[in-house]
Amino acid sequence: MVKVAIDAMGGDFGPKPIIEGVVEALKIKEFEPILVGDENEIKKYLPKKLHDKVSFINSSDYIKMDEHATDALRRKESSIYKAIDLVRNNEADAVVSAGHSGATMSLATLRIGRIKGIKRPAIATFMPTIKKEYTLVLDVGANVDSDSENLYQFALMGEIYSREVLNHDKPKIGLLSNGEEDVKGNSVTKETFAKLKDNPSFYGNVEGNDIFKGVVDVVVCDGFVGNILLKTSEGVADTIVTMIKEEVRKSGLISKVGALLMRRVFKALKKSIDYAEYGGAPLLGVNGCVIVSHGKSNAKAIKNAIFQAINYTEADITAKIESKIKGE
Amino acid sequence: MVKVAIDAMGGDFGPKPIIEGVVEALKIKEFEPILVGDENEIKKYLPKKLHDKVSFINSSDYIKMDEHATDALRRKESSIYKAIDLVRNNEADAVVSAGHSGATMSLATLRIGRIKGIKRPAIATFMPTIKKEYTLVLDVGANVDSDSENLYQFALMGEIYSREVLNHDKPKIGLLSNGEEDVKGNSVTKETFAKLKDNPSFYGNVEGNDIFKGVVDVVVCDGFVGNILLKTSEGVADTIVTMIKEEVRKSGLISKVGALLMRRVFKALKKSIDYAEYGGAPLLGVNGCVIVSHGKSNAKAIKNAIFQAINYTEADITAKIESKIKGE
Repeated sequence: MVKVAIDAMGGDFGPKPIIEGVVEALKIKEFEPILVGDENEIKKYLPKKLHDKVSFINSSDYIKMDEHATDALRRKESSIYKAIDLVRNNEADAVVSAGHSGATMSLATLRIGRIKGIKRPAIATFMPTIKKEYTLVLDVGANVDSDSENLYQFALMGEIYSREVLNHDKPKIGLLSNGEEDVKGNSVTKETFAKLKDNPSFYGNVEGNDIFKGVVDVVVCDGFVGNILLKTSEGVADTIVTMIKEEVRKSGLISKVGALLMRRVFKALKKSIDYAEYGGAPLLGVNGCVIVSHGKSNAKAIKNAIFQAINYTEADITAKIESKIKGE
Repeated sequence: MVKVAIDAMGGDFGPKPIIEGVVEALKIKEFEPILVGDENEIKKYLPKKLHDKVSFINSSDYIKMDEHATDALRRKESSIYKAIDLVRNNEADAVVSAGHSGATMSLATLRIGRIKGIKRPAIATFMPTIKKEYTLVLDVGANVDSDSENLYQFALMGEIYSREVLNHDKPKIGLLSNGEEDVKGNSVTKETFAKLKDNPSFYGNVEGNDIFKGVVDVVVCDGFVGNILLKTSEGVADTIVTMIKEEVRKSGLISKVGALLMRRVFKALKKSIDYAEYGGAPLLGVNGCVIVSHGKSNAKAIKNAIFQAINYTEADITAKIESKIKGE
């Protein structure tokens, strides 16, 4: 059975939604949760009958969201440090954390280490499409100043994840660029294009709007660009929602029906951009499974992050990435 | 009076909306339009009484949207070539073109040349904000692989344009980055940050979503990132509109009222992202005024692009940029 270490403490809302997520996951799948954190606190939210289905690793410290990631390496009593070290020491197969994402990423990279041959790990996230599927986008912020070798490796890792965990039979990989023509790009993406062009999964350059059309399954970019992409999408969605609300407010005569309709629209919108639907972002390229969940994760998000961790482990993504990189 | 050369031929819909835009502009402001294109075609859309208010430069060729920008330099009979050369030869103060934007940019750069001291010109565009104002974003695609000197110059040019043409008394400049903290950025933006940090107009790093909040007046980025930013925004907006339409369609019972409400929402949305409201994107850094309008420009867009060209010329932006760069 897959052993999943769960940082129970670091999320924005404390252990409650985290433990509820574990409980939800246990109803559906068999796995061995290792709950890292303040055992007394955790037990408040864990039904008695489940106490023997989980293990506890007590921890007296956790890294707060406004603390510096650079401190993480010294905070050996923190829940995320201990959870990551369970993977390092092969006492767990995977770790799920809704805590400080910077701390999680640097601890994962430094304590677990990279897969042999991988220059830099990448954070992969899920963007909604009009096809009601997700586009996997990486890197969305683990690195800035990626070179073509980094982007090339992101492409290979994204392909493996898409095929093995997301069940896309023949995933198509796109390279994010400033135009879809082959000649478009900056110096780094042009070099990356040349490296990818003989890969049968490579679709070619894609543009920002192609992500939401679901033109490809995996989109590769530098973490600086990926972060701007995420934040821009967030900004546009917020702006449109604000505008809609204002129009509904102004249109007094149809307010009741309008409000009903708007609730449905917002619900659909929220669902499509809700990270709870997929659970968390895998940190691809570290020598073990690390799922980085949003700090505001609810029980559903944690449950889905755990499922991702189980699928990742069962599909043996780490070994597949290592053998792919070795073969290149 | 300001002389504005107008490429009457290159837009997606031929000379009709272009000439209608000129007619609209003449109703409000005095200026000297120089219409470049097929004189017989142009005259079809120009009321007789205006024939002596405009000059004509006949041209037998124009560059189609699907042709290569690289051909532009050899197409000396094309409307955009002739319009640009009017500025080059001081026979016009400004040029407005809804034609092939790549051709317009390369002809402007090669035939008119750069302002002394400017390393690279930049395309500046307008992004909507929830404050119902625009954020000026540059560069959105004239260059890829900009260095910190380029970004620094974009900041100075954006500041001048924002103050002199958009009437922001003390424009605030933001540097697009992967986080708002000073230490965030890639190697190029970190270098740019160091160059800008003593500029009193410099706000600091901004994130993708800050553009739509109207946190600053001017946002500076590399053209590769700027293009992805534009396309991503477009993609998110399209996706949300598609989702709303689907929800309205599904909700049969409230369809009539819903449809009415949706028309209002879409109208407000369309208005806020409608380039017709501001007219076109100035190409900052060339030694003359060049306004690049959208190929699908309607009369209103052309009218507003002409007003931008007049304001640009009257504020003597070119000289102000030159003297600013000289002083640095």
